[in-house]
Amino acid sequence: MQDDFSLEPRPGSVRPGGRTARTRQLVLDAALAEVSESGYAGVSIERIAKRAGVAPSTVYRRWRTVENVVLDIADKIATEHIELAPSQDLESDLRALTRGIVTLYRVPVHRTWMDVMVSSAVREERARDTLHQTLMSRIATTSAMVERAILRGEVPPDTDTEEVVRVAAAPLYYRMYITCEEIDEEIADRCARMAALAARNGILTKR
Amino acid sequence: MQDDFSLEPRPGSVRPGGRTARTRQLVLDAALAEVSESGYAGVSIERIAKRAGVAPSTVYRRWRTVENVVLDIADKIATEHIELAPSQDLESDLRALTRGIVTLYRVPVHRTWMDVMVSSAVREERARDTLHQTLMSRIATTSAMVERAILRGEVPPDTDTEEVVRVAAAPLYYRMYITCEEIDEEIADRCARMAALAARNGILTKR
Repeated sequence: MQDDFSLEPRPGSVRPGGRTARTRQLVLDAALAEVSESGYAGVSIERIAKRAGVAPSTVYRRWRTVENVVLDIADKIATEHIELAPSQDLESDLRALTRGIVTLYRVPVHRTWMDVMVSSAVREERARDTLHQTLMSRIATTSAMVERAILRGEVPPDTDTEEVVRVAAAPLYYRMYITCEEIDEEIADRCARMAALAARNGILTKR
Repeated sequence: MQDDFSLEPRPGSVRPGGRTARTRQLVLDAALAEVSESGYAGVSIERIAKRAGVAPSTVYRRWRTVENVVLDIADKIATEHIELAPSQDLESDLRALTRGIVTLYRVPVHRTWMDVMVSSAVREERARDTLHQTLMSRIATTSAMVERAILRGEVPPDTDTEEVVRVAAAPLYYRMYITCEEIDEEIADRCARMAALAARNGILTKR
């Protein structure tokens, strides 16, 4: 079953909770531990495989590169921990997102992943590309809530949907990595309110 | 003239362009180069002094610790490069600030300083404290523009003046260090508009 390990599994080819899922978990845990200890530049497929207790060929077959392993950690974090059930107004949707960010980074491994990536991105182009890809992908996915607000007529049709997500999330990350302050739900709610207000008032339209 | 080198010079004790100013410039340049090469943890007063071509006692007398040297770099950057002439409305004042941030980080040494600090802050508590102090000090100074808006009656009296500055600046730093995207004047103007709108609408009041 070679395709069991392909990056984009065919529907039904991955058995949740089965051997594949367990292997993935082992490898991603090992990769996160390696990256935390050695920084992004110090990590290799061989070291990840050794730590996970699997054959290097298993890791190569499924992920091909360290970048892909690290991107997969980010995907797993995002899909497991931010659940966004659509509501009927943009501010509620954005609040679910910003509260989700606060919750996400209370989990130590997620905070560690982002710490390592932010720190590495400053120094290494490869890490910067990976972080950029991860965030742009999350922003694109999340911006569906703004598309729905456009369809409801809640915000102008030329709203820059991704920019609304950016400005809602930005003050949280700014506190985490620039001013080095705590974040909490009250701050998250305020971010959502501000981004919704700006979107409704047509300030966040496409350039 | 021992006080020539004190951290808080008495008025008139520092001759602009004189020997003191030149020594400060040499030391701060050397410190920035050292921090860029070795990270915050690898730097000592002795190494900074050697690189600057001055006696270690000169550096000890004026700054006492590496932290104070690095904080002084930040102060110098802020005072030299962000000039905020007060206007008659909050959005204009905020625009001067956000455009000032864009301009500031086009200067390579300033970008380097912030890169090193953000990267170090994740890993070292000392660097985190220094970055936190630097940013809180800049935010406090800059928030005077929001105080003036309160006095004019432009925003509610219970506005969290520092929060207005935070949300105006946040999307710029978020792009620089989290999504790894470019920043420009158009983005800066939008940040100012959004923060001013949120403040006027009473969303950014004290908690």
